[in-house]
Amino acid sequence: MKNKFLFTCGDINGIGPEISLKLFNQLLKKKTSDHYIFLCPLNVFEYYLKLLNLKFSYQVISEITETKSNILNILPMPDTHLKIGVPTKISGKTAYHSLIISLNLLKLKLADAVITAPVSKHSFELAGINFPGQTEILASECKTKNFLMMFLSKKMIAALATIHIPIKDVSKSLSVKLIRTKINILLGALENDLSIKRPQIAILGLNPHAGEQGRIGKEETKLISPSIKYFEKNVYGPFVPDAFFANHLYKKFDAVLGMYHDQVLIPFKMMNFNNGVNYTAGLPIIRTSPDHGTAFDIAGKGIADFSSLLSAFNYAKIISNNRKKIER
Amino acid sequence: MKNKFLFTCGDINGIGPEISLKLFNQLLKKKTSDHYIFLCPLNVFEYYLKLLNLKFSYQVISEITETKSNILNILPMPDTHLKIGVPTKISGKTAYHSLIISLNLLKLKLADAVITAPVSKHSFELAGINFPGQTEILASECKTKNFLMMFLSKKMIAALATIHIPIKDVSKSLSVKLIRTKINILLGALENDLSIKRPQIAILGLNPHAGEQGRIGKEETKLISPSIKYFEKNVYGPFVPDAFFANHLYKKFDAVLGMYHDQVLIPFKMMNFNNGVNYTAGLPIIRTSPDHGTAFDIAGKGIADFSSLLSAFNYAKIISNNRKKIER
Repeated sequence: MKNKFLFTCGDINGIGPEISLKLFNQLLKKKTSDHYIFLCPLNVFEYYLKLLNLKFSYQVISEITETKSNILNILPMPDTHLKIGVPTKISGKTAYHSLIISLNLLKLKLADAVITAPVSKHSFELAGINFPGQTEILASECKTKNFLMMFLSKKMIAALATIHIPIKDVSKSLSVKLIRTKINILLGALENDLSIKRPQIAILGLNPHAGEQGRIGKEETKLISPSIKYFEKNVYGPFVPDAFFANHLYKKFDAVLGMYHDQVLIPFKMMNFNNGVNYTAGLPIIRTSPDHGTAFDIAGKGIADFSSLLSAFNYAKIISNNRKKIER
Repeated sequence: MKNKFLFTCGDINGIGPEISLKLFNQLLKKKTSDHYIFLCPLNVFEYYLKLLNLKFSYQVISEITETKSNILNILPMPDTHLKIGVPTKISGKTAYHSLIISLNLLKLKLADAVITAPVSKHSFELAGINFPGQTEILASECKTKNFLMMFLSKKMIAALATIHIPIKDVSKSLSVKLIRTKINILLGALENDLSIKRPQIAILGLNPHAGEQGRIGKEETKLISPSIKYFEKNVYGPFVPDAFFANHLYKKFDAVLGMYHDQVLIPFKMMNFNNGVNYTAGLPIIRTSPDHGTAFDIAGKGIADFSSLLSAFNYAKIISNNRKKIER
């Protein structure tokens, strides 16, 4: 199946352009019918091509219809000032526009998936963009609250009931409706996007010892257990969070749903270092991204590792192919 | 140095008596000047001695002054009904009394340290004992709020600012005073109990991404950073929790202080499975315990692993020796 993959540049002062070029260099060594489209300022692209001393074919296009396979297609953003290692207003704006243009192309079905390079919230703020992350921009652009932040890796697939909110607000953000919705999206994504038949999922408790039958918090008995019971099968829990990971129970399930950011990200990142993949499930469009930040401290040094971006690409391809199979 | 070590039986229907006897069997193979004292009903002790087919010398004592080295000293609790694998009112009461008697002996300086076997909160409830755990009983008996739950292992030493409270109450439980107190106890325990000179410690943030300079929660800027600044040196943070563990930053510090139970216990148990040691710092008495539960599901089968209890004993001995060095 032929796919058109969009790649955003992310924050141009971070490692985004470098890991992208390293990835294209590897992908273009293999003959493919896929089209790779990079949304990046041309001066930034050329700067990194020279810095990294990479030699692969590319063309600059002005329309998405001009893309070809076996060559990098650059849909250029306006040329802009590089200030390597520093979040700036310009780098925030460029990252944001590169994402928005990608989303519009995807909504018009002119491409199949976007792999987004890391952005900086600091740059976003300097540019006056008020979103805690790309996931939230995607959901807003797709006009939905029914999305799910997922983390993909060979060791564990995980998802979050709540994302970038303070710990003190987690409990009041949870409801039976929210948890049921997240479980539904997770089951759908596992089945349709990742082609897992009859997925079995584990739901974590919120509190220490999963609340000990209400002794340490009521969310398990009042919200989480009722949400699980609504699904007659394949959904299990609430599990005691520390024991769940210590005893490797995650190996017995296709995925795990956690109640808050660090409950999932601490174990996920311990297992995968920075090589996991962030996937936004539940949207009409497909978006994956590497599970690391802009790494301003090592930007421009040529030492950034592109393996997480490669995994993000691989998952985008798997998901795109699976969705096309279903559509046919 | 000669030490008198007390061992509680824990919940007699769990694995406590079994792992204790396996430990004594190993300890008594080596000549020592230390005295080992087991607080357990005699019928339970004899049941497990036969079940496990262990042969070591023991004597039943009626006074703590009668203890000897190179033999197990049993300070018997009243004989009681075993119901292996089931939490009962009797097992709750026995576990509680075994702990309280130990604490009284320690307070009278008739022994040096207690190693507590696991208890069941369910049994405690059946027995009308309203404490979330042994740590809280200890603190209450020692009439102090200035204690610290620590987790000891070769890979990481960790401590908790809050323990067995619902996630929704964590933020309101934190204060500059509390965090400073916990840091002080931690520094003292590392220096005096574990003999680490000029310990360097890391403090975790509370919120996702450690709050991102106040964008995701204010506790880092309002409570945690001011608490850290109070210490002019050796105290660092607040660190981004998931990155701290993913990037193995804990290896650069002598210990880490987390803000809530699972933030520390998820990574600690992932690193140490169930082989870590729980230590209650800041008390006049010394208490360690294995970092696992009663394991009712495998009780009475002879298959329980005593390595965590052995580690708990080893740490109790280290701490007791270090405190004696300071006293001299």
